[in-house]
Amino acid sequence: MPELRKDPVTGRWVIISTERHKRPSDFRLERHNAARDEYCPFCAGHEELTPPEVFAYRSNGNGRNGPGWDLRVVPNKFPALQVEGGLDREGEGMFDRMNGIGAHEVIIETPDHEKTLATMSEAEIVRVLSAFRERVRDLKQDFRFRYILLFKNHGGPAGATLEHSHSQLIALPIVPDFVRAEIEGARHHFADKERCVFCDIVHQELVVARRIILENADIVALAPYAPRFPFETWLVPRRHGSRFEEAEQHEYESLARLLKALLVRVNRALETPSYNLIVHTSPFSEDTNAFYHWHLELMPRLTKVAGFEWGTGFYINPTSPEEAARVLRDVKV
Amino acid sequence: MPELRKDPVTGRWVIISTERHKRPSDFRLERHNAARDEYCPFCAGHEELTPPEVFAYRSNGNGRNGPGWDLRVVPNKFPALQVEGGLDREGEGMFDRMNGIGAHEVIIETPDHEKTLATMSEAEIVRVLSAFRERVRDLKQDFRFRYILLFKNHGGPAGATLEHSHSQLIALPIVPDFVRAEIEGARHHFADKERCVFCDIVHQELVVARRIILENADIVALAPYAPRFPFETWLVPRRHGSRFEEAEQHEYESLARLLKALLVRVNRALETPSYNLIVHTSPFSEDTNAFYHWHLELMPRLTKVAGFEWGTGFYINPTSPEEAARVLRDVKV
Repeated sequence: MPELRKDPVTGRWVIISTERHKRPSDFRLERHNAARDEYCPFCAGHEELTPPEVFAYRSNGNGRNGPGWDLRVVPNKFPALQVEGGLDREGEGMFDRMNGIGAHEVIIETPDHEKTLATMSEAEIVRVLSAFRERVRDLKQDFRFRYILLFKNHGGPAGATLEHSHSQLIALPIVPDFVRAEIEGARHHFADKERCVFCDIVHQELVVARRIILENADIVALAPYAPRFPFETWLVPRRHGSRFEEAEQHEYESLARLLKALLVRVNRALETPSYNLIVHTSPFSEDTNAFYHWHLELMPRLTKVAGFEWGTGFYINPTSPEEAARVLRDVKV
Repeated sequence: MPELRKDPVTGRWVIISTERHKRPSDFRLERHNAARDEYCPFCAGHEELTPPEVFAYRSNGNGRNGPGWDLRVVPNKFPALQVEGGLDREGEGMFDRMNGIGAHEVIIETPDHEKTLATMSEAEIVRVLSAFRERVRDLKQDFRFRYILLFKNHGGPAGATLEHSHSQLIALPIVPDFVRAEIEGARHHFADKERCVFCDIVHQELVVARRIILENADIVALAPYAPRFPFETWLVPRRHGSRFEEAEQHEYESLARLLKALLVRVNRALETPSYNLIVHTSPFSEDTNAFYHWHLELMPRLTKVAGFEWGTGFYINPTSPEEAARVLRDVKV
């Protein structure tokens, strides 16, 4: 049974995932491990290699867990958390723990092994975003969960173990630290100014223009003022709203269009890097509507060797956001 | 001029290091870059390849910047921060910035290219710790600085660009986020209980025993209850004290002995992994004596591919601390 444990100093929760139990000898292998797809479990026709699907889009009449799908969502075969059971929150001396209860799902974005978010059609990307929304709407009915992490590890260096384009979803009974820090920061800004800090950022950045990469009717892609990583990019909706799953259809369409355009430019400028893409959205368990603002964060994996940043969360970024934005704006497409 | 910039949402400061300016084309190289030491600038006899030394231990009578040294401290040739100048704190619309003023030094731990902390004598490791202390005592007199980061990136995957054993020091005009989180957590615990949280942890862990790896008269090496990484290890002094630089000589000696013993075990159990080692100590600018407790954190780099953890600071750890401690305790030495 996986566990959620709380660091008694910082209050940070971590998942100790015994299902992914690693012995010392396992780490030796990992060093030489590359993404191998000799028999890809995410390809059409290989449905029996995944756990049974929990959601799918099918444009033809075939049945569940057979071919003919456009997008499938399946439980992760090696889940970090376990979906059945009670939380059993308890103290262990001075420490705090609970059972590692949560959903861990894989969104198989396309039946085509070769496609990526950068090469999919806009309609295909909208389908991915719609699947995100549907899964969140379903899982938020489970009273055990407080937050849903939606993220994509693209490429081996970004943590992907399979090449076939997919995203992941982790529903959690706690609110992760990094979400908490953003929410408390935004709450503080609102208490001070009666305005959303993300709305303020978008407003100012559109005036200053130097850190804007791309924009359309609904979404602005910008290099944040204090980025942790080279070419870190935020995709922020113009309209204020705290929850990804409550966006409007035209916003998903605009987001798909801008995300595709951004990834095409990133691939041209940086030679198709690995990346992490993370949806930042409100926890279910609290009312953040006034002051929090959902958005996406894209982090290309360029600096292969992160040093002490890895253990400290204190970042040295060798590329200014002004230059990153200029490079991406100047890409010929 | 490097800059320190503050994220307007979370309050996190980052270094934008224009001295280490990276263009898109530079990132291509980095992918294939390995630590190469054809002509190592840290070896005895190559002193002219580093900036002039700011500190050294010499057991023979040779002069500065020549051979005959046991340990040298030199400014980083590619510093993340610049030591001369004023902070010029200013607003930029809604954003906050200051000049990237700080010291960035390299502690060359030994003249011998082949030695590592695991193979040095205890006296040599004490010399490294003494150099840390001396540099902190010197730099804390500079009123511009609030915190000194002392850390070691060992091995290419941990961020080391040179193989020759060395540590780094970064003096900062701000307190990094991760230090702030620890200090506020410890302050909160003390306000509640009138006890230091680290003292409480050591006390409880010694009773429970399952997460203890090694101990001696002054220092306890333990696997923390909620580790972010497999085999993450804390080296905590038994005696309460908030500042690394105010430890007593016998504590440095005990720390050197335990650190060496720990690294020997880590190398046996995990095939000489890369690692990050970070000194956690109090900022200069505040009185944390009652509630904060200096310590070291060791993070072996085992999981080559960290995925979304990298961008979120939310961790899935596949190895329980109980098992990690057991594996390291059971190593035959």
